[in-house]
Amino acid sequence: MPSRVAVVGASGYSGAELLRLIAGHSGMDVTVATSREFAGKDIAAVYPNLSAYAGTAFVELDPDTLAGLDLVFLALPHGASMAVGAPLAGAGVRVVDFSADFRLTDPAVYRQWYGAEHSAPEWLGKWIYGLPEINRDALRGAALVANPGCYPTAATLALAPLLAAGLIEPAGITIAAASGVSGAGRGMSAGVHFSHVDANVKAYGLGTHKHTPEIEQELGRIAGETVTVTFVPHLVPTARGLLATCTARLTPGATATAIFDAVAARYEGEPFVRATPAPPETKFVSGSNGAHVYATADSRTGTAIAVCAIDNLGKGAAGQALQNANLMLGFAETEGLTAGGIYP
Amino acid sequence: MPSRVAVVGASGYSGAELLRLIAGHSGMDVTVATSREFAGKDIAAVYPNLSAYAGTAFVELDPDTLAGLDLVFLALPHGASMAVGAPLAGAGVRVVDFSADFRLTDPAVYRQWYGAEHSAPEWLGKWIYGLPEINRDALRGAALVANPGCYPTAATLALAPLLAAGLIEPAGITIAAASGVSGAGRGMSAGVHFSHVDANVKAYGLGTHKHTPEIEQELGRIAGETVTVTFVPHLVPTARGLLATCTARLTPGATATAIFDAVAARYEGEPFVRATPAPPETKFVSGSNGAHVYATADSRTGTAIAVCAIDNLGKGAAGQALQNANLMLGFAETEGLTAGGIYP
Amino acid sequence: MPSRVAVVGASGYSGAELLRLIAGHSGMDVTVATSREFAGKDIAAVYPNLSAYAGTAFVELDPDTLAGLDLVFLALPHGASMAVGAPLAGAGVRVVDFSADFRLTDPAVYRQWYGAEHSAPEWLGKWIYGLPEINRDALRGAALVANPGCYPTAATLALAPLLAAGLIEPAGITIAAASGVSGAGRGMSAGVHFSHVDANVKAYGLGTHKHTPEIEQELGRIAGETVTVTFVPHLVPTARGLLATCTARLTPGATATAIFDAVAARYEGEPFVRATPAPPETKFVSGSNGAHVYATADSRTGTAIAVCAIDNLGKGAAGQALQNANLMLGFAETEGLTAGGIYP
Amino acid sequence: MPSRVAVVGASGYSGAELLRLIAGHSGMDVTVATSREFAGKDIAAVYPNLSAYAGTAFVELDPDTLAGLDLVFLALPHGASMAVGAPLAGAGVRVVDFSADFRLTDPAVYRQWYGAEHSAPEWLGKWIYGLPEINRDALRGAALVANPGCYPTAATLALAPLLAAGLIEPAGITIAAASGVSGAGRGMSAGVHFSHVDANVKAYGLGTHKHTPEIEQELGRIAGETVTVTFVPHLVPTARGLLATCTARLTPGATATAIFDAVAARYEGEPFVRATPAPPETKFVSGSNGAHVYATADSRTGTAIAVCAIDNLGKGAAGQALQNANLMLGFAETEGLTAGGIYP
Repeated sequence: MPSRVAVVGASGYSGAELLRLIAGHSGMDVTVATSREFAGKDIAAVYPNLSAYAGTAFVELDPDTLAGLDLVFLALPHGASMAVGAPLAGAGVRVVDFSADFRLTDPAVYRQWYGAEHSAPEWLGKWIYGLPEINRDALRGAALVANPGCYPTAATLALAPLLAAGLIEPAGITIAAASGVSGAGRGMSAGVHFSHVDANVKAYGLGTHKHTPEIEQELGRIAGETVTVTFVPHLVPTARGLLATCTARLTPGATATAIFDAVAARYEGEPFVRATPAPPETKFVSGSNGAHVYATADSRTGTAIAVCAIDNLGKGAAGQALQNANLMLGFAETEGLTAGGIYP
Repeated sequence: MPSRVAVVGASGYSGAELLRLIAGHSGMDVTVATSREFAGKDIAAVYPNLSAYAGTAFVELDPDTLAGLDLVFLALPHGASMAVGAPLAGAGVRVVDFSADFRLTDPAVYRQWYGAEHSAPEWLGKWIYGLPEINRDALRGAALVANPGCYPTAATLALAPLLAAGLIEPAGITIAAASGVSGAGRGMSAGVHFSHVDANVKAYGLGTHKHTPEIEQELGRIAGETVTVTFVPHLVPTARGLLATCTARLTPGATATAIFDAVAARYEGEPFVRATPAPPETKFVSGSNGAHVYATADSRTGTAIAVCAIDNLGKGAAGQALQNANLMLGFAETEGLTAGGIYP
Repeated sequence: MPSRVAVVGASGYSGAELLRLIAGHSGMDVTVATSREFAGKDIAAVYPNLSAYAGTAFVELDPDTLAGLDLVFLALPHGASMAVGAPLAGAGVRVVDFSADFRLTDPAVYRQWYGAEHSAPEWLGKWIYGLPEINRDALRGAALVANPGCYPTAATLALAPLLAAGLIEPAGITIAAASGVSGAGRGMSAGVHFSHVDANVKAYGLGTHKHTPEIEQELGRIAGETVTVTFVPHLVPTARGLLATCTARLTPGATATAIFDAVAARYEGEPFVRATPAPPETKFVSGSNGAHVYATADSRTGTAIAVCAIDNLGKGAAGQALQNANLMLGFAETEGLTAGGIYP
Repeated sequence: MPSRVAVVGASGYSGAELLRLIAGHSGMDVTVATSREFAGKDIAAVYPNLSAYAGTAFVELDPDTLAGLDLVFLALPHGASMAVGAPLAGAGVRVVDFSADFRLTDPAVYRQWYGAEHSAPEWLGKWIYGLPEINRDALRGAALVANPGCYPTAATLALAPLLAAGLIEPAGITIAAASGVSGAGRGMSAGVHFSHVDANVKAYGLGTHKHTPEIEQELGRIAGETVTVTFVPHLVPTARGLLATCTARLTPGATATAIFDAVAARYEGEPFVRATPAPPETKFVSGSNGAHVYATADSRTGTAIAVCAIDNLGKGAAGQALQNANLMLGFAETEGLTAGGIYP
């Protein structure tokens, strides 16, 4: 009998991508798909690509309908998720939360970066950070999983092998990342108008992006000491795709070869993360749960350069959420997922 | 035991897309993948998205290696396919041919549009035209299938219901279609340079495109009389996606409602072709084998307007080839295929 | 002393493009630039590309400030323009109106297509249709000019030479056109979100687009008889660029050569419209007031095919408005304008 | 009488863009436009946007025809320019060279980064580096100007104010830049195929890009001491546009306000470079010679972040070349140039 799951916030880009993926999963049924904006409308009418859901309508969120399910995916905006996720957690329901609400462990860090008090601080630190390539064992059978942000996923996959191997200094890391526009969500604003975005490149949130403390927390866990990061995200004219280019100071003796080999060794055998022989390109993982990582060193300046490419809606959101759900529910980790993108 | 298949011309866009699809097929194994350009190179090195093929290399075409296989896909350019396909056909090997070489039934029509004699005219008319929504019964268990062109697929799916129902005149049909650039293949030329194509729209092959006789042949078969078509293809700045906008004169008494209903009735229950309530958009079928069709009438001018959206590499090439192969080999028609696109 | 002009609705895409062009005009000063949304804000802050206007703010529309000006450009939406334009016309102010409000001459046609009564029907037929290549003499020194729509500009430039020469039938013309997204304006809607438009193609307004009667009216004027048109516009993933592909039945004896020559002869010596030796591409006129036209015949089916490429914000809106203003005010027709686009 | 100039290598993207700009220059005539690939072909046939040159053909390069001209623009590839430029320099002809051949002053640095001996090392150090906002006085009336690279232009404009004011450390600077594909030139390769580039982002030349020593040389001149830079360029799916995002360690006491103010003060009154109140976007300078610069500090990590947006073919190549030529020949610096881009 298939596992019965809910997707809360199913009409956002990440939620709709998850619906698409679950339609190809052999052991999961979407029992509830909520959408405030489209409640009552047929899913396939709102998203004609989701023809597998023709005849099923989005519904309003009703917490009572979630209680007996095998797992609930929360694809709600930051800040909105904690009010739904905390009671579910209290009721013992398995949850994968896409938002940042349960990723940080320290309420003070949350307050500093989000400018508000967390409404359920007692739950901070009790959700597993859902990056299977780092935390796989903890995720198997887990009940509560905080799905990583898109930028932190790429940055952590790029830098983890180098920090773990002691090849780079934990202080003074710089991350310049570029994301496709779907990362900003379905909401309308002048900044996502096609005529504005097309043929345009910009940096934003210079040093202030909310993913910064998440990156520092997770890299710090790996390094075993405080990690500081200067993070500059960019918007580039593509719907999907995210590339994180990370630079860090080499530790004494670290070489380009050691850097490259550390990545290759770290991801040997991983089903979704692959060390590539050349700098990765986002298109090769587009539409998939794959991540491509490459690292080298500019020994002239004593700098490591590590790059990771993902699909921000795949490994950066819905794909990773399903990978986590597979681990939580005991499915094969790759069920319903692909590692290779749609090319060209 | 899985069916053993070959993909000849596997490093072109259509061939590589087929490799991607077969990797997700439960009953098919790629035994041979040929490429003149990349023979000897690892498939996953050439196409990093095809990581499922890591460790397998492209090989040179050697006809002897194809003899005992369950099915051979020929993804070769027009003109090059007949020399490979005719001997395979003679040897009783099941073949799906992507090229136009075995689509036309009349050698004189071939000569007129392709400007050369066909080298294996005895085979013309003996391959089934591989549009399952029209020819499904003939395709089940078939040995030789000519996979339709991308434009003919979309134009035929748009117009077939209207011609079959006698709602439009068979003469004076106009088809204005727009294709993504991958339709022109991987080959380099000034016309496919990103800087040239980006933010650019053009018409080409005005009234002279080689898909014209194929469209007329297949529509004529459906209408039971001669069909003439003025065909104007366009190139638009997207990698994938094909939209065919067809106009035709209404027969006396034909109404917008009858036009719309004829499409809906025709595709009721089809797994890949869907009548949409509004004009279709290519993005909703991108990366899939889906086709979305919509038709209405401009009763003011006595004109039917029928529109079909497909992915030129999906339903317009590799997806349809796999759908045909499923029918030929007795698999479920939908095995390894999806009807819904990657959105956004 | 430079001519003093106003741009009403200056923060829309067409208005802002006009501001950009006037900044390079040797004899025109923008005295008033109105914007409801951005009144009080510095023009260069809203549009950083309009740095030439740094220090000047958008203002609310105040009709009193327009009275003494040499010319007023109205870049307001359809329906909103008549309320401003009619009083200005009554007061003897020179006006170029971007909207459709004064283009149609017959109030009944207006009512039929716009679904409302025209509020100033006494002015219909008294504004010159501002297509200089057709109406140049009437535009010199004119006081009231209705600037053509983007689709009608391209369709008329493509078909006028053929109709005037009697080479095509006036009935049964089909126009399939593709426009960049800026044609839909700055307003936000799901349909202009980058993630939706990118890599997407669709038809819309099948047989119902409001530019249809305008095309029929102007072509009818040229043909000297009733012209009927089936018009199917498309949206393609580019910010700028418009291509109109027109098909029509050849009159007896009309040849591909005669069709081609008619276009070449018609535009010989025109500063902005050029007959090209091959089908035009929108990119070569992007950012300019140029129009490229090509025509041929599919003699097999008895069909003429005529194609015109423009920039929808250039020759399709702001460029043409400035060209008209130059004629009205006695400037060189090319002042402040270019015929060649920004490529690549 | 207008100045008579040649454009050598006029059919590349930079050369053709320069032709476009000179067509709008009041005091300059193109006497010779060379192209190896298109010699004998009408300029407007090769580049339909250059309709101003209809009737003029590209010619083969013949050094004798350049001798008496007022100025020669060399838009040749790196390595090819020195063989033409050195004799011209020796003959006293004014030259603006687009290539890197005369930018570096130290033959050893040239050898290290370009992997070959310079064939005219006696000329190194004798060409003025053509960044007018830094070297304006030296460029007025100069005979030999090395036009800067696109990345060095953006990086230098971003960092110069901070280095000059002592607000950042000269060691350990990181530059992550993104360029449009036209920066790679008109030449064909798999990496510039539309289907590959569209919806794709990648880093390349990690720490090895040839613009690195040029950036270090010019920043070092400004800092008065050795500057080291880790440079990671990226390719993004746009034809034009270049964004350089630079990070550097703050010197003690340097604040975000001081950083921001240093940029504003530095470019006050500049006709083409503007300090923007928010991070710049490439689209607002597209098609122009403008550059937008913004800088701030991440005081949490002690890092300055400076961003510059240009059009790689404008301020990054042809626009800047014309700006330099204006200074060399005594024209107004802004003649034939605009600071604001084509938007949207």
